[in-house]
Amino acid sequence: MFGVTILGNNSAVPAYNRHPTAQIVTFQDQLILFDCGEGTQLQITKYKIKWGKIKHIFISHLHGDHYFGLIGLISSMYLLGRKDILYVYGPVALKPILDLQLNAANTQLPFELVFIPLGVDCVVLNEMKYTVECFATQHRIESRGFVVREKRKPRKINKEAVLFHHIPTQFYEKLQDGSDYTNKDGVVIKNDILTTPNTPGRSYAYSGDTLFDENVANHVKGVSLLYHESTYLKNMEDNAKFRFHSTTHQAATIAKIANVKKLIIGHFSSKYENLDIFLNEAQEVFPNTFLATEGTTHRITS
Amino acid sequence: MFGVTILGNNSAVPAYNRHPTAQIVTFQDQLILFDCGEGTQLQITKYKIKWGKIKHIFISHLHGDHYFGLIGLISSMYLLGRKDILYVYGPVALKPILDLQLNAANTQLPFELVFIPLGVDCVVLNEMKYTVECFATQHRIESRGFVVREKRKPRKINKEAVLFHHIPTQFYEKLQDGSDYTNKDGVVIKNDILTTPNTPGRSYAYSGDTLFDENVANHVKGVSLLYHESTYLKNMEDNAKFRFHSTTHQAATIAKIANVKKLIIGHFSSKYENLDIFLNEAQEVFPNTFLATEGTTHRITS
Repeated sequence: MFGVTILGNNSAVPAYNRHPTAQIVTFQDQLILFDCGEGTQLQITKYKIKWGKIKHIFISHLHGDHYFGLIGLISSMYLLGRKDILYVYGPVALKPILDLQLNAANTQLPFELVFIPLGVDCVVLNEMKYTVECFATQHRIESRGFVVREKRKPRKINKEAVLFHHIPTQFYEKLQDGSDYTNKDGVVIKNDILTTPNTPGRSYAYSGDTLFDENVANHVKGVSLLYHESTYLKNMEDNAKFRFHSTTHQAATIAKIANVKKLIIGHFSSKYENLDIFLNEAQEVFPNTFLATEGTTHRITS
Repeated sequence: MFGVTILGNNSAVPAYNRHPTAQIVTFQDQLILFDCGEGTQLQITKYKIKWGKIKHIFISHLHGDHYFGLIGLISSMYLLGRKDILYVYGPVALKPILDLQLNAANTQLPFELVFIPLGVDCVVLNEMKYTVECFATQHRIESRGFVVREKRKPRKINKEAVLFHHIPTQFYEKLQDGSDYTNKDGVVIKNDILTTPNTPGRSYAYSGDTLFDENVANHVKGVSLLYHESTYLKNMEDNAKFRFHSTTHQAATIAKIANVKKLIIGHFSSKYENLDIFLNEAQEVFPNTFLATEGTTHRITS
């Protein structure tokens, strides 16, 4: 399973029983947490997320609605007896904030917490079956967005063709990676004669908080699913710009330019109770849009 | 109105939809927050507590379940446009934790935040109509309990007596404070001829986290209402001691020794789903015991 579960869809001050930003990406048996607003551990419990499977936590930036729940989550992992290594990625200033609070409670974590400060526009995590890239966004303070990419699956070997061309079995792995084969007589046998493509890798992008910025579209080009913040409705464009946030139309425009397959919008301002109009406005620009609703899981299918 | 509203009654890891410790003491038009576990701002919203009226916040100690919600609460006060001064009392290590997080978000508070480090066994707040004392408790890290005392109300003037004894009106205030009056002839007229006592001041004590410690009983002697932590049931006395917490019987024993009028127990361990047995056990020792339940307000009547 590759999917994303929304744990918090609100911005800043919690309102209308909506929580600050947090989302869990499930990649097979691993869970990745993107942002961790206050109360995330309560949402994790409510939606029966398996604490122990969270291996990587990414913090986009140090506004409280994106990370005030992190120290509580780590403390509870400690109290629940976690033993496995935990990787936390975030702005460099996050580390002393965590350390100061752990020290104040005289807490010695029984598991290793590895902190990785986020660079700019680079692959920050390279797992066996997926990578996570981060990119800089324009926000009031240093901020990042992320892209999770399933690694391209190996090509499928055409059994009849490899036998016919007498390809040695030890070359099969290279064939799966796309290499051509040159035989003893110096004849090149093209890879696409010997293999067929497998399904392309799926991908998920999370914008974090950002001003409307076409550069984001470059980073999230063609992804299977994009979560883009949409703090305001379209009539609040000036306010959005002033606060370094985006509107419905702007989020949907990025999705359209980037030619993504599906869009989720979230990070709604506390001033709005009813969210239907968010969906309507975004769909005017990008029809395949969905609202981020807490507890909902979106499977990433292609 | 003088009363206490429970916002969180659980210890450490949140469980069974119970939240970490926080309680609001209402004294007329002022609100005082005692401890501020993660999610307190959500509970404040849920139970319609008026944010703007919170003037004083006391943090008993730096275990996360007692203060991880503080930075979020302060940040939301900022976002909601608070202008009024806010007083925060806590262990000295709390201040740099708050500062580091405010700086990381580049937040300039538009209101004054005055931090007062807690001493030992002293009056830390002296308001017009009440005081707050703090006392040290025995816990794994430096920790405090608190007592809110309504100031003794002025004595009532006996109108017939003051006229009969020709007491000048400008001396009435001193009479209300309990002074005797000496007339021109040097005759002392005793105060209790001229006034009658008013109702005694009410009081509320909050134990914070503590080992069973008879010294706590000295500090909370005769209070109108005591909240004493009761993390465990009586059969877990060894565990309670090991973790510097109290059991049902121990909390009730303190209430009995201190001869308080009423007891609330809370800070329940996450291992217990059903709390009825907590009440039964405590009532075996101190019958006038109540369970801390979230959203419930206990009026302090005498």
